[in-house]
Amino acid sequence: MSEYILPLEQLIEQFAKLPGVGRKTATRYAMALLEWPGEAVDAFSGALLDAKAKIKRCRICNNISESELCPICSDDTRQGVLCIVEDPRAVMSIERVRDFKGKYHVLGGVLSPINGVGPEQLKIKELLQRIEKENITEVIVATNPTVEGETTAMYVTRLLKPFGIKVTRLAYGVPVGADLEYADEVTLTRAIEGRREIT
Amino acid sequence: MSEYILPLEQLIEQFAKLPGVGRKTATRYAMALLEWPGEAVDAFSGALLDAKAKIKRCRICNNISESELCPICSDDTRQGVLCIVEDPRAVMSIERVRDFKGKYHVLGGVLSPINGVGPEQLKIKELLQRIEKENITEVIVATNPTVEGETTAMYVTRLLKPFGIKVTRLAYGVPVGADLEYADEVTLTRAIEGRREIT
Repeated sequence: MSEYILPLEQLIEQFAKLPGVGRKTATRYAMALLEWPGEAVDAFSGALLDAKAKIKRCRICNNISESELCPICSDDTRQGVLCIVEDPRAVMSIERVRDFKGKYHVLGGVLSPINGVGPEQLKIKELLQRIEKENITEVIVATNPTVEGETTAMYVTRLLKPFGIKVTRLAYGVPVGADLEYADEVTLTRAIEGRREIT
Repeated sequence: MSEYILPLEQLIEQFAKLPGVGRKTATRYAMALLEWPGEAVDAFSGALLDAKAKIKRCRICNNISESELCPICSDDTRQGVLCIVEDPRAVMSIERVRDFKGKYHVLGGVLSPINGVGPEQLKIKELLQRIEKENITEVIVATNPTVEGETTAMYVTRLLKPFGIKVTRLAYGVPVGADLEYADEVTLTRAIEGRREIT
């Protein structure tokens, strides 16, 4: 049963397709949008179409890009180290640090059999082609520290073994500035395992 | 500093205008949307424009409507009782019960000085005009049971006093099917105050 008049029902349906948005939240969004002035709604609608039309994936690293080749892949000063991440958000996070001077490879997700995501759904084949072609000395596997991220990291590491390249994983430990009291047991265990001598 | 490429940044900005959506959630929505097929994005964009273009406010009750007069206001069998609510969602909630046979008046919000909402921002003048013109025997003030909803209910009740009409408020109490353990103290106090003899 559609509860609301059709155009509203259809808008709610669209909002409900966003990740983590249920019918209640979608209704809230749709109702709020009805209060917007016409130009604001036009701008929203335009931004949607614009983003879809203008944002491509870099043909080398699969990061989002306005051009066929993203600015990072076009930058010849970035060499040697390849950082493997799940999605473009991770690229942004690492770029924000301004410390990493290698390139990226965006897998486009993590292995998740329950969601039907196998190696074919990720940019794994493309990764191996890059390893063969490019002059890479180290691969940093920077998938998220979740169960699925770990599984994917292990899978990728195993695939890279035959190439004889150094493969590293981000360090685990307590987040800087956080209170030990709030660190979960797994994180603390990893932090103790990875402890370093003070010199 | 805009972190992402411009079209994505602009889409994130639009999503961040939705109620309760911060930059993080907006980014999540925008990223998800980039994965949608082109037709799905077109449909979303179309639904936005469609909703804005087709949804009007009923000129009598201020409820959302596709026509100048909403189906409820056009229904001559609904007479006598007028239910005052904050927004169209409340109309839908009460309609779902299929028990109420009167009409509605949608205030379009609640009094909230802190947010700059006074009586002029609500459809209060229109309410008084209806009370004068229509043959109303009872007014049910069904604003939400929040502090602002209460204040608005009290304000409206005072305005209606001179008309000599019966003004009622929805009963407070424990929600049916809920566990007493989870009822807050104010609700329980109201439930005890409003207790009824079992006959």
